[in-house]
Amino acid sequence: MLQISQRGLAMPPSPIRKLVPFAEAAKKKGIRVYHLNIGQPDIETPKAMLDAVRNADFKVLEYSHSAGNESYRRKLTEYYEKVGIHVNHNQIIVTTGGSEAIQFGFMACLDPGDEVIIPEPFYANYNGFAVAAGVVVKPITSYIENGFALPPIEEFEKAITPRTKAIVICNPNNPTGYLYSREEMEVLKQIILKHQLFLFADEAYREFCYTGEHFSAMQLEGVDDHVVLMDTISKRYSACGARIGALVTRNKSLLDAVMKFAQARLSPPGFAQIAAEAAVDLPDTYFDATKAEYLLRRDTLVNRLNAMEGVFCPNPGGAFYAIARLPIDDADKFCQWLLEDFSYKDQTVMLAPATGFYGTAGLGKNEVRLAYVLNVESINAAMDCLEQALFTYANEINVSVSDTKHV
Amino acid sequence: MLQISQRGLAMPPSPIRKLVPFAEAAKKKGIRVYHLNIGQPDIETPKAMLDAVRNADFKVLEYSHSAGNESYRRKLTEYYEKVGIHVNHNQIIVTTGGSEAIQFGFMACLDPGDEVIIPEPFYANYNGFAVAAGVVVKPITSYIENGFALPPIEEFEKAITPRTKAIVICNPNNPTGYLYSREEMEVLKQIILKHQLFLFADEAYREFCYTGEHFSAMQLEGVDDHVVLMDTISKRYSACGARIGALVTRNKSLLDAVMKFAQARLSPPGFAQIAAEAAVDLPDTYFDATKAEYLLRRDTLVNRLNAMEGVFCPNPGGAFYAIARLPIDDADKFCQWLLEDFSYKDQTVMLAPATGFYGTAGLGKNEVRLAYVLNVESINAAMDCLEQALFTYANEINVSVSDTKHV
Repeated sequence: MLQISQRGLAMPPSPIRKLVPFAEAAKKKGIRVYHLNIGQPDIETPKAMLDAVRNADFKVLEYSHSAGNESYRRKLTEYYEKVGIHVNHNQIIVTTGGSEAIQFGFMACLDPGDEVIIPEPFYANYNGFAVAAGVVVKPITSYIENGFALPPIEEFEKAITPRTKAIVICNPNNPTGYLYSREEMEVLKQIILKHQLFLFADEAYREFCYTGEHFSAMQLEGVDDHVVLMDTISKRYSACGARIGALVTRNKSLLDAVMKFAQARLSPPGFAQIAAEAAVDLPDTYFDATKAEYLLRRDTLVNRLNAMEGVFCPNPGGAFYAIARLPIDDADKFCQWLLEDFSYKDQTVMLAPATGFYGTAGLGKNEVRLAYVLNVESINAAMDCLEQALFTYANEINVSVSDTKHV
Repeated sequence: MLQISQRGLAMPPSPIRKLVPFAEAAKKKGIRVYHLNIGQPDIETPKAMLDAVRNADFKVLEYSHSAGNESYRRKLTEYYEKVGIHVNHNQIIVTTGGSEAIQFGFMACLDPGDEVIIPEPFYANYNGFAVAAGVVVKPITSYIENGFALPPIEEFEKAITPRTKAIVICNPNNPTGYLYSREEMEVLKQIILKHQLFLFADEAYREFCYTGEHFSAMQLEGVDDHVVLMDTISKRYSACGARIGALVTRNKSLLDAVMKFAQARLSPPGFAQIAAEAAVDLPDTYFDATKAEYLLRRDTLVNRLNAMEGVFCPNPGGAFYAIARLPIDDADKFCQWLLEDFSYKDQTVMLAPATGFYGTAGLGKNEVRLAYVLNVESINAAMDCLEQALFTYANEINVSVSDTKHV
């Protein structure tokens, strides 16, 4: 029998995108949908990046170096220097989005059956990359009550087995928005040193920290061989479609191994490397405006959420996500209901059920992730919808569900 | 001990790129190196493609659909229709280069330990993608004497085991330039039907056929669920750096599985999809000039090679590669020597040792692959170098090697 692979069957669908058909159906009914479900910012991509591509003068769109154009890698070292990360251009391998950096890291550091520890809730696609690489994700739970802070060291110790090879830390965090402190990073350093683990640091949202300075895993001392930075320009410059990221490490054997994976796929995208190189020359003030805008959005969103009855949303320290606990029975059902059966003034809101971000089954059932990637006016309109929806849901749906249970 | 993965160690380096440091050293000495080692054409990327990107009007470079922009996929069906492949846009998943299409196919159709049969010599990166996916490549040998025609059906039967899940066919072939006939494709159809295998068809060079019409695996009847087309615009439009390919199949379960891998990495490159969409509207005459140019180059190269003493090069029916047998002892050594120790009028030529294209150790030791991606003048200059080099090598190197053996 002709069959697809077990791996293909086991591959998880995107929990963020699975409600898309319901959103499309809502739009066809004339309902405006506010997309707080996905990290696609409405911030304009810097014109200097687009202009660099428009004005690029070449006749043949050739393969670049498999590690990315040397000129771009050299330029990137200037960017990293500015954020306190000291690396040279040979310690950078340009990837096709942050996604490929994660894939390369998993492939080059872990073998099938090896385990990677990730605080949950976590970026759902780590699951997909783990399945592709045959790697086992071991979640350790962080909790909404303390804003999803790093779980205590004992929880890591309990999860570690002889197959454990790495820890993934996303800082600031997607989906929780939690900003790990320097102290928490030092705790991770002790763990990786004691157990000889890799530390995969996904710092896609480095630029967006509101409650403190970002402390990069690359700034930890004495763990040069352990730390692998998985980076991307997607969020930094609102250039998600560019598909330009980077794997950065000072571990020479790892760089050699990753380079072989990079050579196999020939090169990262050409046009976008031009845009990415131009981005490094944006004025230092560029991030000020973006960050101020996200801060305003965060405050609007979090205040509105916490003002709703029965809703709790910890104030995120970074990124542009928040996880809120809602007075609902089932986040998947609720998010689908918002699109399928609800509207307020011909509008509704699309959220990501938090269940998709937990590795442990059953967690996150009354939580949703909200991406504050829309302007304040839209966020307020979306919150008006959510407030009304929770009221309707409590009176019509939750009640009838409870009634049914008692029949 | 902190160690990279066994997979990372097992990953093969690119045999095409491993001589690059020697080429760079030669250039530093002031020697001009003719690059016949790599399939990077000097043909200009169509201006209409570059202009489409230059003139694209958008403010935010957003993620595209994970399967690629719908407008591009719809446009691509027009292209496929023209070349006799009838598919709809939902049967196309746009990938990051043909490389990702191959990776997706391996991942979604084969599990670790499964086997894939590939006629050798074959495109070396299949090895890399196989290692990444934990898949075992079973080579069956094709021979220079008959121009690398499809091995007889018995050879396939001998190689098939219960773990065999797929056959890869690259048509026209890289590295041999062999153009598989419709009859040969029908033979493959019988094998995949009898043994319920997938047929992965890498048709990157479809446009460049000189001795007959291209017959696509997608044109085979009654094997819709078996055939997976792995395509790319890299060579078709001389746009290798775009990193736009496609996985095309009529197998619905496979499309669903591949879509999950596509969602995990979010989307293919944005700028380049705009260029690729514009390419479909190039006039039908576009390929005439390119094909005529490649034909002239092929004839120049093959005639020059066969005029050299002790050299045999079968006339390739397609693509822009040829494999030649040279009067040498060790192709790897010879190709390195060309860069390290030889020059003729301050020029030399870079070739790819054929050993890297064979799965069976020891084969291809007196063969090299030549990519006729440079203009006729450069090809002639490169052939002048090679002719002189073979003469020098025979008199100085081979002889001394033989002498040493007799000591």
